[in-house]
Amino acid sequence: MIERISHIGIAVHDLERGIGLYRDVFGMQLLGIEDVAEQGVRVAMFRAGESRIELLEPTSAESPVAKFLASRGPGLHHICYEVDDVDRALKRIGESGVRLIDHESRRGAGDTKVGFLHPNSTGGVLIELNSHV
Amino acid sequence: MIERISHIGIAVHDLERGIGLYRDVFGMQLLGIEDVAEQGVRVAMFRAGESRIELLEPTSAESPVAKFLASRGPGLHHICYEVDDVDRALKRIGESGVRLIDHESRRGAGDTKVGFLHPNSTGGVLIELNSHV
Repeated sequence: MIERISHIGIAVHDLERGIGLYRDVFGMQLLGIEDVAEQGVRVAMFRAGESRIELLEPTSAESPVAKFLASRGPGLHHICYEVDDVDRALKRIGESGVRLIDHESRRGAGDTKVGFLHPNSTGGVLIELNSHV
Repeated sequence: MIERISHIGIAVHDLERGIGLYRDVFGMQLLGIEDVAEQGVRVAMFRAGESRIELLEPTSAESPVAKFLASRGPGLHHICYEVDDVDRALKRIGESGVRLIDHESRRGAGDTKVGFLHPNSTGGVLIELNSHV
């Protein structure tokens, strides 16, 4: 069902400083910077093999990432797996007793569908699933 | 310099329960279970595309993973990137001002060399680098 790691989301206080580390020190290719208004974040995406690293800077105090930074500080925020079909995966995982944040997929960036599992049911890991529409 | 995500380390209280989630619910292939005495952990490894997910259960109260669980609870623990040569990468990253845990590589599992960067210098992310010997 899970095909690969789509991306790792990392919460940062300062996107420019994060870009300095990942692009200039680690030598990772910066793929783009994007505002995701509905999540209240500005995102810098880097290539890491078949996966991406996404640095997430909150653009609003109400953003889940702002709350994460306030309670846990900067660092690893979530992991996103690519699956064949998010809705089928959510249904199957939900039926197995895992608590879901999204019972149906919502539209993600580009031509993707995404859905989140609840960290209380996944050993403290915020897990996102995505698939191409 | 960074070629791909080698693995994501996830701290768990109970390895068997973690295996139940990743293998039986997520359908990920369990590659093996290994005791890593020098890190004080038992590790279950799963395939996720070109990367792995590694669940880490502490086997000693002195283990860094036991301390992580005590202070932060279970969840995302570290990210490991595969690089061409760990020693060359540590030297270059250290020269750029990033604080290192390891100034020289040490022997990892299998035929690998590994080295860690200090999370205080990397936006709160514990980063491991590995390469084949």
